[in-house]
Amino acid sequence: MSTEELHTKEEPLIPAKEQIEVDDELMQDINELVKSKSDYLLLNIIQDLYAQDIAHILNRLDVEEAGYVFGILPSDLASETLLELDDVHREHLLKILEQPRLQEIVGEMASDDAADIVAELPEAQQEEVLEQMDVQDSSQVEELLHYDEHTAGGLMAKEVLVVSPNDTIKKAIRQVRQFAKDHKNVFNTFVVDEQGLLVGSVPLQDLLIYTPNKRIRKIMQTDVISVTTDVDQEEVAKIFSKYDIVALPVTDTAGKLLGRITVDDIVDVLEEEHEEDISRMVGSDTVAMERRSPAQIAFLRLPWVLATLLIELGAGIVIHQFDQTLSTVILLASFMPIISAISGNTGLQSAAIIVRGLATGQVDIHNWIHPIRRQMETTVIIAAVTGSAIGIVGAVWHGTPVFGVVVGFSMFISVNISGFVGTIVPLTSKRIGFDPAITAGPFETAFQDVVGITIFLSIATLLLRWL
Amino acid sequence: MSTEELHTKEEPLIPAKEQIEVDDELMQDINELVKSKSDYLLLNIIQDLYAQDIAHILNRLDVEEAGYVFGILPSDLASETLLELDDVHREHLLKILEQPRLQEIVGEMASDDAADIVAELPEAQQEEVLEQMDVQDSSQVEELLHYDEHTAGGLMAKEVLVVSPNDTIKKAIRQVRQFAKDHKNVFNTFVVDEQGLLVGSVPLQDLLIYTPNKRIRKIMQTDVISVTTDVDQEEVAKIFSKYDIVALPVTDTAGKLLGRITVDDIVDVLEEEHEEDISRMVGSDTVAMERRSPAQIAFLRLPWVLATLLIELGAGIVIHQFDQTLSTVILLASFMPIISAISGNTGLQSAAIIVRGLATGQVDIHNWIHPIRRQMETTVIIAAVTGSAIGIVGAVWHGTPVFGVVVGFSMFISVNISGFVGTIVPLTSKRIGFDPAITAGPFETAFQDVVGITIFLSIATLLLRWL
Repeated sequence: MSTEELHTKEEPLIPAKEQIEVDDELMQDINELVKSKSDYLLLNIIQDLYAQDIAHILNRLDVEEAGYVFGILPSDLASETLLELDDVHREHLLKILEQPRLQEIVGEMASDDAADIVAELPEAQQEEVLEQMDVQDSSQVEELLHYDEHTAGGLMAKEVLVVSPNDTIKKAIRQVRQFAKDHKNVFNTFVVDEQGLLVGSVPLQDLLIYTPNKRIRKIMQTDVISVTTDVDQEEVAKIFSKYDIVALPVTDTAGKLLGRITVDDIVDVLEEEHEEDISRMVGSDTVAMERRSPAQIAFLRLPWVLATLLIELGAGIVIHQFDQTLSTVILLASFMPIISAISGNTGLQSAAIIVRGLATGQVDIHNWIHPIRRQMETTVIIAAVTGSAIGIVGAVWHGTPVFGVVVGFSMFISVNISGFVGTIVPLTSKRIGFDPAITAGPFETAFQDVVGITIFLSIATLLLRWL
Repeated sequence: MSTEELHTKEEPLIPAKEQIEVDDELMQDINELVKSKSDYLLLNIIQDLYAQDIAHILNRLDVEEAGYVFGILPSDLASETLLELDDVHREHLLKILEQPRLQEIVGEMASDDAADIVAELPEAQQEEVLEQMDVQDSSQVEELLHYDEHTAGGLMAKEVLVVSPNDTIKKAIRQVRQFAKDHKNVFNTFVVDEQGLLVGSVPLQDLLIYTPNKRIRKIMQTDVISVTTDVDQEEVAKIFSKYDIVALPVTDTAGKLLGRITVDDIVDVLEEEHEEDISRMVGSDTVAMERRSPAQIAFLRLPWVLATLLIELGAGIVIHQFDQTLSTVILLASFMPIISAISGNTGLQSAAIIVRGLATGQVDIHNWIHPIRRQMETTVIIAAVTGSAIGIVGAVWHGTPVFGVVVGFSMFISVNISGFVGTIVPLTSKRIGFDPAITAGPFETAFQDVVGITIFLSIATLLLRWL
């Protein structure tokens, strides 16, 4: 593009954003500029960046410095950046922001984002912010605040482009034009009747295909996939993923259109659910750890660790009951960790398969027998293979076939029980409305330790006279 | 909508799709219709469903029955359905489909989907399908076949709507109109110069906002986020999630536009990566299990189980070295599972935090010291708390303070080593270009068993004379 053209342009060219690598060098520069309070130079570096990258920079500063840099941002950029910050930084900023500035920043946001931010404020401040908003905006935000944040209602934005089935395409395009000036991510228009009921949807591209005087009802898709406000976000994500859609209308139970969810929010939901699943499997949050103090992190992780410790103390008590047996054949002690680890591992595998199957819909909660039978068929094979393997090792090591039988048979029984428990526990949790993922983690493994060791030492004691 | 209007419509109304619950009752009906070969009735039920739901139904049938139902589908629906089937059913269908039908079905697909299907065919058949395609289509598919399926190149579709910076909006809209007739999910047009280099992007909605005789260069966004063909799909997903975009252009290293990736594919990538992470943590695939035979599943799970068994055998050998100590103070055996479980758990937590931190970019691979120091600060606290807790239990249970010191001190050392290993191993893996996620799973836990028990029994042996 020649510079001449740039000068003769009738409207301002959209300023090009710069994509950068937030590396140590940049952070050092920023740190120095913050220290010397060189606002002009700071703003010069920062204002051409994407809000996401600015947030990344702020996240790497300590909260006071981040607050300082945030303070020099123009309110539109401040608004976008605030939404991208990590929890610790955002919490701090919301605490120190003065009312007029906060008002300005929230005013720049779409209703769903504004509701998320307002929800994080103390109650008194919430009311103040809502009072000072436009009447329409504030009623939208207030409505959104009522929904659970993990449901379709909590995810949706109120800003929806609607047309009537009787509108011509020409009129619809005019409405799109008006709406698109203030809103990003316009992919389709929803069609509602006089009662506000959702009756159709028209992808933006279809408005361009047909002749302008055709009526919307002739071109609209009538098979609109929609959800009600109370649908869980995981379910919503499943719908997006299954039907490959980019925007999903949200209605009340009567079918009245209330808002829409766009796919960019779903990408965030998927990552959130991902974190959650992994956190449960290891018994610890894995995110937002970077900005907390070591003591805070330890405090978050310790409950899981101590609960595991308590369960394992059960294993210790079991072992104590069998002191006599262990003293007689001390080699049994060498096989304890093997049997408990393998039982724990296979139980965890079964649990994870069932949990994922329930999440993806491959396992049907209304049909118990099928998944249990399938899991047990697999488990029996694994139990037989591992039991035989360890049985042979045991027989050779101790030099007696009986020892091999004890360890092999214990392994076989213990793995089968683990597989069964690993299958039945998440199924039952789901059935009684409890998150099944919580059952496929450290507690599962610890519990299997207790079971495995009990079985092993009981069988050993029974067959002790031949050992 | 009145029936009269339906009859006077000038163009066929888009047929409404039906969303259904694939329940046992429906499956029973379908089963009966398949058995009685009532094609007409079957088609009557099925043809108004979404391809995703048809695939769901076929996935629940055995492969022969699924093949039969698939056979009666019209080719456009068959094409969509094939892409949604699970691996086992799709593999079977690709084996039994006759060449002309397969050709027809692949011909209905977008280039990226066509490439995915062709890639699954045996080589001889690949050539045959490519030969019989349109020259342009076949060269597109052939190009896509060259890219690794887990990279941007493997994800992208070749069908891209491009305009020139000198085009007027009016001309661009004409091009959109032409393109949108054959393609879904048109969200923006990419702008390329005469050399084919990507220079800008225009969201569809912007084409509607500005006056039609304005030139594209005046309204285009010049800060286009793009990737080259070799970028890993996890990285691509991160870009979509960070910048909230719905379509990402893919270029060669010179900046020439080669294709585009849309957000619906990214939703699938996120779920795939999610499955992969969980599979690694439990040491077993958790998906696509539903349609495999129990023996096949056992075969997939056993390598992990047997590898764990082998590592735990190491723990057994270690214990055997301390037979003397154990026989003398048999209560030590009761504390073995506690120490090894807690060490395993804290090690796994550290590993998971580092793995997720590396994935989200919160942990910086270029700065080792920082994450290690932070993890160790947390670990020391956890080690101190668990060590004190178990030390007190030990002292009370055995009735001697020395026993408490042995178990408490062992716990403290062992947890610290676990935390360190759990931190350093994924960092090192990442550094040498190995997937760090693999190090946060059953092997980690098993390894910590060996370490924990070694430390515990060594310390006990050292202090034996006072026990």
